[in-house]
Amino acid sequence: MINPIRSARQRIPAAVLGATGAVGQRFVQLLDNHPWFQVVALTGSDRAVGQKYVDACHWLLSTPMPEWAREITVSPTLPEALDAPLAFSALPSKAAQDAEPLYALSGAVVCSNASAFRTAPDVPLVLPEVNPEHTAMIAQQRQKRGWKGAIVTNANCTITGLTIVMKALMDSFGCRRAFAVSMQAVSGAGYPGVASMDILGNVVPYIGDEEEKMEWEPRKILGTVKDGAVELSSLAISAHANRVAVPDGHMVCLSIELERPGSLAEVGQVLRGYKPPEIVRDLPSTPAAVIQVMDEPDRPQPRLDIMAGRGMTTVVGRLRPDALLDYKMVILSHNTIRGAAGGSIYNAELLVAQGHIS
Amino acid sequence: MINPIRSARQRIPAAVLGATGAVGQRFVQLLDNHPWFQVVALTGSDRAVGQKYVDACHWLLSTPMPEWAREITVSPTLPEALDAPLAFSALPSKAAQDAEPLYALSGAVVCSNASAFRTAPDVPLVLPEVNPEHTAMIAQQRQKRGWKGAIVTNANCTITGLTIVMKALMDSFGCRRAFAVSMQAVSGAGYPGVASMDILGNVVPYIGDEEEKMEWEPRKILGTVKDGAVELSSLAISAHANRVAVPDGHMVCLSIELERPGSLAEVGQVLRGYKPPEIVRDLPSTPAAVIQVMDEPDRPQPRLDIMAGRGMTTVVGRLRPDALLDYKMVILSHNTIRGAAGGSIYNAELLVAQGHIS
Amino acid sequence: MINPIRSARQRIPAAVLGATGAVGQRFVQLLDNHPWFQVVALTGSDRAVGQKYVDACHWLLSTPMPEWAREITVSPTLPEALDAPLAFSALPSKAAQDAEPLYALSGAVVCSNASAFRTAPDVPLVLPEVNPEHTAMIAQQRQKRGWKGAIVTNANCTITGLTIVMKALMDSFGCRRAFAVSMQAVSGAGYPGVASMDILGNVVPYIGDEEEKMEWEPRKILGTVKDGAVELSSLAISAHANRVAVPDGHMVCLSIELERPGSLAEVGQVLRGYKPPEIVRDLPSTPAAVIQVMDEPDRPQPRLDIMAGRGMTTVVGRLRPDALLDYKMVILSHNTIRGAAGGSIYNAELLVAQGHIS
Amino acid sequence: MINPIRSARQRIPAAVLGATGAVGQRFVQLLDNHPWFQVVALTGSDRAVGQKYVDACHWLLSTPMPEWAREITVSPTLPEALDAPLAFSALPSKAAQDAEPLYALSGAVVCSNASAFRTAPDVPLVLPEVNPEHTAMIAQQRQKRGWKGAIVTNANCTITGLTIVMKALMDSFGCRRAFAVSMQAVSGAGYPGVASMDILGNVVPYIGDEEEKMEWEPRKILGTVKDGAVELSSLAISAHANRVAVPDGHMVCLSIELERPGSLAEVGQVLRGYKPPEIVRDLPSTPAAVIQVMDEPDRPQPRLDIMAGRGMTTVVGRLRPDALLDYKMVILSHNTIRGAAGGSIYNAELLVAQGHIS
Repeated sequence: MINPIRSARQRIPAAVLGATGAVGQRFVQLLDNHPWFQVVALTGSDRAVGQKYVDACHWLLSTPMPEWAREITVSPTLPEALDAPLAFSALPSKAAQDAEPLYALSGAVVCSNASAFRTAPDVPLVLPEVNPEHTAMIAQQRQKRGWKGAIVTNANCTITGLTIVMKALMDSFGCRRAFAVSMQAVSGAGYPGVASMDILGNVVPYIGDEEEKMEWEPRKILGTVKDGAVELSSLAISAHANRVAVPDGHMVCLSIELERPGSLAEVGQVLRGYKPPEIVRDLPSTPAAVIQVMDEPDRPQPRLDIMAGRGMTTVVGRLRPDALLDYKMVILSHNTIRGAAGGSIYNAELLVAQGHIS
Repeated sequence: MINPIRSARQRIPAAVLGATGAVGQRFVQLLDNHPWFQVVALTGSDRAVGQKYVDACHWLLSTPMPEWAREITVSPTLPEALDAPLAFSALPSKAAQDAEPLYALSGAVVCSNASAFRTAPDVPLVLPEVNPEHTAMIAQQRQKRGWKGAIVTNANCTITGLTIVMKALMDSFGCRRAFAVSMQAVSGAGYPGVASMDILGNVVPYIGDEEEKMEWEPRKILGTVKDGAVELSSLAISAHANRVAVPDGHMVCLSIELERPGSLAEVGQVLRGYKPPEIVRDLPSTPAAVIQVMDEPDRPQPRLDIMAGRGMTTVVGRLRPDALLDYKMVILSHNTIRGAAGGSIYNAELLVAQGHIS
Repeated sequence: MINPIRSARQRIPAAVLGATGAVGQRFVQLLDNHPWFQVVALTGSDRAVGQKYVDACHWLLSTPMPEWAREITVSPTLPEALDAPLAFSALPSKAAQDAEPLYALSGAVVCSNASAFRTAPDVPLVLPEVNPEHTAMIAQQRQKRGWKGAIVTNANCTITGLTIVMKALMDSFGCRRAFAVSMQAVSGAGYPGVASMDILGNVVPYIGDEEEKMEWEPRKILGTVKDGAVELSSLAISAHANRVAVPDGHMVCLSIELERPGSLAEVGQVLRGYKPPEIVRDLPSTPAAVIQVMDEPDRPQPRLDIMAGRGMTTVVGRLRPDALLDYKMVILSHNTIRGAAGGSIYNAELLVAQGHIS
Repeated sequence: MINPIRSARQRIPAAVLGATGAVGQRFVQLLDNHPWFQVVALTGSDRAVGQKYVDACHWLLSTPMPEWAREITVSPTLPEALDAPLAFSALPSKAAQDAEPLYALSGAVVCSNASAFRTAPDVPLVLPEVNPEHTAMIAQQRQKRGWKGAIVTNANCTITGLTIVMKALMDSFGCRRAFAVSMQAVSGAGYPGVASMDILGNVVPYIGDEEEKMEWEPRKILGTVKDGAVELSSLAISAHANRVAVPDGHMVCLSIELERPGSLAEVGQVLRGYKPPEIVRDLPSTPAAVIQVMDEPDRPQPRLDIMAGRGMTTVVGRLRPDALLDYKMVILSHNTIRGAAGGSIYNAELLVAQGHIS
């Protein structure tokens, strides 16, 4: 029984690094009343340091800023002052490159949404529903880098739902090749992010470095850890990334080739019935359904379905045969909840359950 | 020299069938000051018949309704009263099924944007830049159906740009297989068409019958006419169709496999240099560039590029290698100009140049 | 103590008339787990009658259709079959004109969102926060019309927040004249309602009959009931109504002239401190704050603030002096919750508390 | 005869200051093939200086960058190198404050879109259709400041259409008081300007300093120049400013009180028949109709009407009686053409016609 609500004094103290940006705000929102974690520090850039969070932050979310967060004084992103075993990182990639190792060195486990260390061979890139065992790499990471803490990353927002679906299919049928075309929400670019003149009534068929991540990250997540290193999956992916005028929710059109035959009904059943690994089933963030399959011909849609499982469920629809590969479908995932802040929190819960944070 | 401006009395009289809808309005707009054609009749549904066009029509375009059109009395969609050798059809598919043969029987050449007859084995499905020779099927059509006139159809709006690109590649390299994922403008659904509650801040990953058309129509257009019938191209296409919050302009993400090797530079050169068949080069609607290739990393975009070649140019960008097939790219085409009314007018110009209309 | 949760068998049975449309769906959503009411019938048009609700209804809301509603068979909008003391009406105005009196005749209290009877001199037009005493007109209504039941209407969605603000000001300062310019969400027009081609990247400065309602309805609601009839308030309003590309939430820019002087601080204090009449304070739908005043310079905004008080709070911001009248401000109200279905439910709760429904 | 097309060598050389931003691009677009002016220099910020314009500029307009502009090397915003009698300023307000006087000192006439000098008592704030005689202030400006050149400003984009309408009414009826509520396009905020997360599906009821400009600038433009100084009009305006999800086109809902009575028909006639002052009638930018009055109940709309008169016409609709003042109406004006770059060019044309530039 790993999911009791902890009393306030038993909760694990945590910092949010880069707390004033769009993803940082999601961390603050999602950590409000979290049963295991308690935010004790919010860090920000030089401009914000010393201000109250309520003054330093242009709050963008449709629920009010939590009361406890308003009065916290924003601190610099430096581990010196931090006495917390856990740090959530919403830092931009460049800042993460510099700051996260300092936290790990000083003993904190950094659950990072930044892309800076995702490709490092000794840093786990984890989706709890898919590869909780990859955290075994932490041992090697500590040994190699001399850290008391660690860095654990979550995946790019666009491939999160995609990879969860592939994992379910891979377990039952294997996956050989995939086409993935994304239609991504503006919140994925942070704030101010996408200029309104660029996206109102428009599609921008380009997002810097996104296609490279879409083609590579699933191969690491679906890979096998041996001797503390990941052997990449041989899955081959062709990706096109697009920005569309949607506030929240990344959609992916997927065509996929299986290694072993499966009927349409069997594939649907596998997706519907997907259960995450045992250790993940009772984590606070685990949704009732990891994957929800919709039968309506025109679903999922970001506006209607993005909050399935409080933003943690991957929603699949339009499962049908493909003219070139085996099947095609549409996948929807909340890019700033499951695909960003919620994903880092989920990783931290996993690390608690595994004993990596205490 | 086929493109002189004809004097008013030399212009070919034409009717627009279904003139009050979204595509009908585009016909009226594009036929304003057309050098070869003169609109003499506008037809509409029972509700509109007898009214002046200005009163019957909820004009949706950003240029004013042409003066000459305002005072035309809307007539019923029946060939009896028509004394014109040419009819442009913006009818819905069901109405087209019934009405277009009556016009063809009575001697008119119907240039139709409707899908009703696109799959008929004796009806040409024509993009002038691609398959002007398919109009040879008219002879068999007349013989088989006993018509003095004819029906010639243009392609589905989504596959128009796609097929033009494929034709250019096919001539030089052959094409074997393709993935095509569309992001389509709301104007493609007519008026009132897509409800605003369905598309504001949203993507709808489904358009009825669209994927079937996307997978089949290019095979007919790229097929070979033998003995008055088309042998379909063996090209295999997998299509996903999506509706996005864009007013005008259909985008397609394309991954394509060639039959014969071509370098990235060669493929770019072939697309840039594509010339339509000789007979098409001087038609009034032929744009300066049939295909425009953009080098900017984030183009084409509907908002910026949709009016290239007055809406008749196919714009290609992001040409790059594909991880599974050979190349990927983005294609933009104006769905209600090149892909609908402008396409039908273009077909009529071709038929004049070929002597099928006079 | 009027707000205990009733046991299932103590809940008041209710019908939703016109349950498949946009407002009907909001009724179904908001009545899910309502502590006092239990939906026992859903009515619809001929097309829907006899189908299960889940099949008859194109569900538009971002929370799933309640389980209990899915299997209800849609019945015709006729009182014969109904054995419920309460009917919520989401009928279009014309249908309401015909059907609501039949329900009232047969003994049901109809809480109607339709505009059909709002102007009738013997039909209360009620906002519980403002004029709960207007339900006294029911006695005269029954006497005059020979009804056992009654019709009670809620206000036009656009004037709801506006009138609540005016009431607070009127109590303390009196109000003489007002300018009100609305920017209204597309959901206010129902479904399919506003065509996407009309509103994407656009503003439509016209909504049929809306300005007339905006100028008249507040005068009735703020009027005085004497001998069962309303004496209209002498308040004079100039209204401009606009449709904007917003999914939910009507904004109103208001300039207002007071009868008695009040400083900016006093006006702010009055709005912040507004308490509804005693009988309304503990109704299930009464929000913690009837009016929320925001100090941020750029708030309220529909995307961020529309769900204040679960969509039942009127949000005011930008309170400042006006160059011509006394003060200006911005008012935001949820048009399909507080301004429509939620408003009718709120009225029903009031009627229960007053003993008009039992 | 003041409007002949000048031969290339007769055209007046001009610089565009701040040419890489959103308004700067409009200058470049609108000056393409201008009959009187020829762009000889494009200036930009340090980041852009030394680059070709095509490389320095993220082009945002839907017509291609003019060929001649692509190869111009961006120069610093310093008058030293400039040998041109005319400079168009698209500088931000702060930069304009510093740079424009240097150009004026060095002998150039600066036609500025910046707000920096609009309130200066010796700087004309000019709409050619309204107050061409205000350029008489240039004499005093030169005398007082010791300039050989001059600064002439155009109005805030939001009040441009509004003030043109008021001028027409003022000439015939006088205007006493007005309410003006704007719904403004995102392009008014420059680029990147409004973040997409702030405006998708949203309204922001605040634009910094905008209401102050809306209430004051019309009073200067409609004022009387005496002894080289402007006596402000006594007109009183109450303004509310809102940002909406529209690409181009500012709408204003106006209620207005006249000084002398006029019937609805007379007011309509005055607006329809408004002729600009004699000297303005044949300028290259003068539209066929300075004011266009639409009778359709739901017009003007930004999407449909913004390009009236190539973006230089003020479009008025919904003229009707007002409940508090005399009349109300809706006004649409293109904010980056008539309200910004096009307005500055129009001013320069006026100054040529008046002999201030040669």
